[in-house]
Amino acid sequence: MKLYHCNQARSMRVVWALEEMRLDYELVSMQFPPRIFHKDYKAVNPLGTVPALVDGELVLTESAGICQYLGEKYGPTPLAVAPEEKDYGLYVNWLHRSDATLTFPLTLVLRYSALEPEQRRQPQVVEDYRAWFLGRWRSVEAGLEGRDYLCADRFTMADICVGYALHLALSLGVEEAMTPRVAAWRARLVARPAYRRAVEL
Amino acid sequence: MKLYHCNQARSMRVVWALEEMRLDYELVSMQFPPRIFHKDYKAVNPLGTVPALVDGELVLTESAGICQYLGEKYGPTPLAVAPEEKDYGLYVNWLHRSDATLTFPLTLVLRYSALEPEQRRQPQVVEDYRAWFLGRWRSVEAGLEGRDYLCADRFTMADICVGYALHLALSLGVEEAMTPRVAAWRARLVARPAYRRAVEL
Repeated sequence: MKLYHCNQARSMRVVWALEEMRLDYELVSMQFPPRIFHKDYKAVNPLGTVPALVDGELVLTESAGICQYLGEKYGPTPLAVAPEEKDYGLYVNWLHRSDATLTFPLTLVLRYSALEPEQRRQPQVVEDYRAWFLGRWRSVEAGLEGRDYLCADRFTMADICVGYALHLALSLGVEEAMTPRVAAWRARLVARPAYRRAVEL
Repeated sequence: MKLYHCNQARSMRVVWALEEMRLDYELVSMQFPPRIFHKDYKAVNPLGTVPALVDGELVLTESAGICQYLGEKYGPTPLAVAPEEKDYGLYVNWLHRSDATLTFPLTLVLRYSALEPEQRRQPQVVEDYRAWFLGRWRSVEAGLEGRDYLCADRFTMADICVGYALHLALSLGVEEAMTPRVAAWRARLVARPAYRRAVEL
């Protein structure tokens, strides 16, 4: 497998999952955003986004979907929750929520506070989606009540995927996400060697 | 199972999937947005978003995730692609892409062109995310090359989930998404009785 990656971008989820599973893969590191610094990347992923995971003929581009795919395809692994487990529904819900609901709003904060040139910045939109994120983030606070991890009483791909959303939020200064319960969960995640490799790579 | 739904909202994916699978469920129809018109809905889904699918003790809120859950949990059904099938990775990628990549940008178009009061509208953001959506939509045009459906040579949950993104795009006037190849695919989707019920309910 070959993974196209930018440091700290959403592809970090996939690096983290691959490192947790100790799978063999080739890492292609690129400067962000690749559509500007790596024009030939369009031949791999016409969308120009990261990650792209090339596995034989397959090219996958959705970070949370790739984590689910790896767990299912290259398992069995405790990182995946099987359909016959009680928390399977919760697991799938967290995987989807991690990107669609918890990462996209942060990309608006990033875009309109930092990536766009001064005259195109939009303080109102930054504020709207900062608040939107924090409203949805309450589901993580609630979901961790009485639990060490998000589902299945163990560390899973759901923690990797939602954990990345928190990593991005903190890098954007959205500190209100760090309630005591969330901070205790994050401490468990960042203590993992695979997380530390994923942050560095 | 009990599904909380607003006509034409993302919960339409779940209605469509439930109707395709002919599963028994109770439908609770609400006016959009429920956080304004149905204050007591917060007790069901604190996020205030639709859908919410209540299945025993489980409350699921991510529309594409729910489709995946239903196929896995209440199958076997041809609407789900199994891990041992060649197109499983593609299937998972489409399910995640349908919401995180293809629906979220449209919610910005809707919000800043229509939902917000006049003085908070943002024509630049509407234009930015209309273009962003169309850039990502090219993956659907490419993905349908030589295929009648998105994966596995049959109609699946992936078509339901991406088909809803197109439905929303058209309702917002993003007509450029309708290339001839996409229009031929859409014609196959809208001919399905379950689609027509999902639009009406």
